[in-house]
Amino acid sequence: MDMVADVAAAGKVVIDFSADFRLRSRDCYEDYYEQHRQADLLPVAVYGLPELHREEIRKTDVIAVPGCYPTSAILGLAPIAAHGAISMEGIVVSSASGVSGMGRRAQLPAVFTECNEDARAYSIGNHRHTPEIEQEIGALAGREITVLFVPHLIPLTRGIVTTIYTSLVRPATSEELLGVYEQFYAGEPFVRVRGLSESVSPKPVAGTNFCDVSVRVDERTNRAIVLTALDNLGKGLSSAAVQCLNVRFGLPETMGLDAPPRWP
Amino acid sequence: MDMVADVAAAGKVVIDFSADFRLRSRDCYEDYYEQHRQADLLPVAVYGLPELHREEIRKTDVIAVPGCYPTSAILGLAPIAAHGAISMEGIVVSSASGVSGMGRRAQLPAVFTECNEDARAYSIGNHRHTPEIEQEIGALAGREITVLFVPHLIPLTRGIVTTIYTSLVRPATSEELLGVYEQFYAGEPFVRVRGLSESVSPKPVAGTNFCDVSVRVDERTNRAIVLTALDNLGKGLSSAAVQCLNVRFGLPETMGLDAPPRWP
Amino acid sequence: MDMVADVAAAGKVVIDFSADFRLRSRDCYEDYYEQHRQADLLPVAVYGLPELHREEIRKTDVIAVPGCYPTSAILGLAPIAAHGAISMEGIVVSSASGVSGMGRRAQLPAVFTECNEDARAYSIGNHRHTPEIEQEIGALAGREITVLFVPHLIPLTRGIVTTIYTSLVRPATSEELLGVYEQFYAGEPFVRVRGLSESVSPKPVAGTNFCDVSVRVDERTNRAIVLTALDNLGKGLSSAAVQCLNVRFGLPETMGLDAPPRWP
Amino acid sequence: MDMVADVAAAGKVVIDFSADFRLRSRDCYEDYYEQHRQADLLPVAVYGLPELHREEIRKTDVIAVPGCYPTSAILGLAPIAAHGAISMEGIVVSSASGVSGMGRRAQLPAVFTECNEDARAYSIGNHRHTPEIEQEIGALAGREITVLFVPHLIPLTRGIVTTIYTSLVRPATSEELLGVYEQFYAGEPFVRVRGLSESVSPKPVAGTNFCDVSVRVDERTNRAIVLTALDNLGKGLSSAAVQCLNVRFGLPETMGLDAPPRWP
Repeated sequence: MDMVADVAAAGKVVIDFSADFRLRSRDCYEDYYEQHRQADLLPVAVYGLPELHREEIRKTDVIAVPGCYPTSAILGLAPIAAHGAISMEGIVVSSASGVSGMGRRAQLPAVFTECNEDARAYSIGNHRHTPEIEQEIGALAGREITVLFVPHLIPLTRGIVTTIYTSLVRPATSEELLGVYEQFYAGEPFVRVRGLSESVSPKPVAGTNFCDVSVRVDERTNRAIVLTALDNLGKGLSSAAVQCLNVRFGLPETMGLDAPPRWP
Repeated sequence: MDMVADVAAAGKVVIDFSADFRLRSRDCYEDYYEQHRQADLLPVAVYGLPELHREEIRKTDVIAVPGCYPTSAILGLAPIAAHGAISMEGIVVSSASGVSGMGRRAQLPAVFTECNEDARAYSIGNHRHTPEIEQEIGALAGREITVLFVPHLIPLTRGIVTTIYTSLVRPATSEELLGVYEQFYAGEPFVRVRGLSESVSPKPVAGTNFCDVSVRVDERTNRAIVLTALDNLGKGLSSAAVQCLNVRFGLPETMGLDAPPRWP
Repeated sequence: MDMVADVAAAGKVVIDFSADFRLRSRDCYEDYYEQHRQADLLPVAVYGLPELHREEIRKTDVIAVPGCYPTSAILGLAPIAAHGAISMEGIVVSSASGVSGMGRRAQLPAVFTECNEDARAYSIGNHRHTPEIEQEIGALAGREITVLFVPHLIPLTRGIVTTIYTSLVRPATSEELLGVYEQFYAGEPFVRVRGLSESVSPKPVAGTNFCDVSVRVDERTNRAIVLTALDNLGKGLSSAAVQCLNVRFGLPETMGLDAPPRWP
Repeated sequence: MDMVADVAAAGKVVIDFSADFRLRSRDCYEDYYEQHRQADLLPVAVYGLPELHREEIRKTDVIAVPGCYPTSAILGLAPIAAHGAISMEGIVVSSASGVSGMGRRAQLPAVFTECNEDARAYSIGNHRHTPEIEQEIGALAGREITVLFVPHLIPLTRGIVTTIYTSLVRPATSEELLGVYEQFYAGEPFVRVRGLSESVSPKPVAGTNFCDVSVRVDERTNRAIVLTALDNLGKGLSSAAVQCLNVRFGLPETMGLDAPPRWP
């Protein structure tokens, strides 16, 4: 936190992986984390998701790279939040992450014999990634929203698959909503909207900066189900920072990020 | 379907793994499956979940063993459905199953190189297991309910982990709801209610007839999150049938089912 | 080491999981481990493999349960070592173990993200389990033998699969050698000799006290290839100790060990 | 086989993935495969391993890309075979491959529930890849050699790890032999010789054209143990063909093959 302030004060650009400058509200930050010692920088910092903040990223010196889970939730919810016709009540974000999401540390719950052949929900309702999702989706929707975020640990090395459940304010079809997504992400180099017959899963995005997104309507319960997948070490971490760097310095946005996935 | 009728007509007891006699409504069956040729037997058949239908199982000659996903959903929802104070609107059942749930067949999506390091939602909103869940929970709640059921495939051999999201009609705490669960399942040999500091996952139930269950309240969004785990080849299949057999013939209910799990 | 001596001095029976009383030679122990402070007990101790030492186990008060790797190597080599017609020069024991072989500890090499999608040889030529194998096989062969033992770590939770390569002193067929194995293990409750069309692997022995064994002759290179598989936490650890306990106290040898495997 | 002949007759260059032109001896081919209908082309064809045949590859129109297992065995044995001081008797090549080595087909043995938590030897002593290894290593050694090759299937998606056991004709140290390997592979872009404290395993080569190689001497048994690892879909298949293409057409040998591995 202090290092970011020092570097910014020296006139350099900071692309920060920590959570310290992701939340615009100091109160919210202090609810979920600790006291904020550099709150003066909060109005300067930009949330490092080029799909939502490309122009602001170009002009700021403090870029706060999103968490891995929030990227998968925000890119999934953004099109229908901006579209406005969708109820923002009762949104459930149900995510599953591979073990690399726990970091590369010697800890018993990450040991192979514990994780393999197992899967579990954790941090139910109080995961620190929740306020990032609410901040970004609320801004797009133009009003405060509340999200229930429940992460799960599953036995894979890398990858996040997120399923989002929301109500619809008026009936819609899967095709209509897919059209909303395709329009919203038209021209985006790293968001791929998947069709009705395609599944959305971590393997086709492993090792890349892609986030795959799709949506289905369950007409019987009048719900939208949004599906997203990304590599938590790619678009969910390091390559997201490279994308921000490219945007900030006027480089081609895909520079260094165009290696193809290993899987169709 | 016809064999069940023949065997029942011969005065024998049938414990049926198929879906043919699980649904009480012929219309509902025909919506999701095919024409029912033995509908006369539907009033006789009992849904083979002893935790809900023990006395009826003792007296019937046609026991319809539940599907693996429905067992995990119904045992998770039953206590709060019976409790009545819980909103039955907008229930989302989000499940994840291992690959053995696909059956033991040579099919490309089940091949190791396809499933390993991957995870995906499938059959969104139209999975045939949905009506079983609605039938059983609706009966406990005393009114029609609608459930959105979304299954996922994850890379494990056996096991189902289900996370259920429901609204609360009035505020409650995790402790209060856990009390409801403990009371509902008091004395049940195969349902284990897990406490607040315990996780619920497939490994501790692998190879057993146990279903582990727990519940959390997210007070911020006024939601209950129910967690269940079972072995889809155990309580979700074969050992469930053995439990029904024991109940039906007056044997000790745990006979043949008391091998300890391999994992604490 | 000292506790074993204390307990034995108190007239109790010790079934010891450590390596302290497995090797009859104090020098050999001290080469591979540390100074032996209870060498007086070495002549009393019996190597806890009932298939080779059943009568001695009945009469001793210090039973040294074998390591997991040695059980898989010794049971694989014993029939041809006792048979005598097989060259004991140039034996290579190439084993692969799951991650539970590393113990249940928080250590980086055991973490899922490190082990999954990887496999490696380790402790090449200097693994502490080597002298146990040489002691037991040398005793059966009636002369000193030298074994090259190379363990590998592979991404499974439990299980050891061992492939042993040896020269033949005179030509033989797979069928002949299989006959030698069947005769040697006739009546053994926990060693299953597998035929030519069957494979030998950890899954069918997981959670059991079985060791599966088979042998093939490669006539082109005049070699025998011995295959064994066991559960490193079963016949390779805890259930092996139970088997010793049963033998020592005159209980049925399979008592507590007759749960069927989960896999055909 | 016939298509290769047609294309070569048309004056084009063929880079062939099949086994049809890998073996120089028609008899040997027919022993392991079928009748050879294009034996006239055998003297023209070159084994597509640039590390051994770079100059011949530049000049031929029929390049036979090696099998995945043979690449791992030949690159492991080549330096000591060429060095001459090493006994070529009694070589054992013990390999383990991930499931992608079985091809992308719906077949029961490749299904996740069968492979996961299992490992097994197969095709013991009669695998069709054996003669390629003997041909290439025999040519380097200057005399006929015989290799016992035993492949294993282990639960990973991609990767081969090979451990080779050979006798030494005179004592040597690990350091000496490592020096032989470093000299043999000096300047090779895709073979990385690993030091004594480094392990050799599939993860650091996944998705690349690298083959990692190392060697240890077990002085007690006077054996060399050679370790190699590669990606069976990379240096073991497609990227090997790209490397041959680059060599054949005078392109930079690493063109299209310089993406870094995902793992250190």
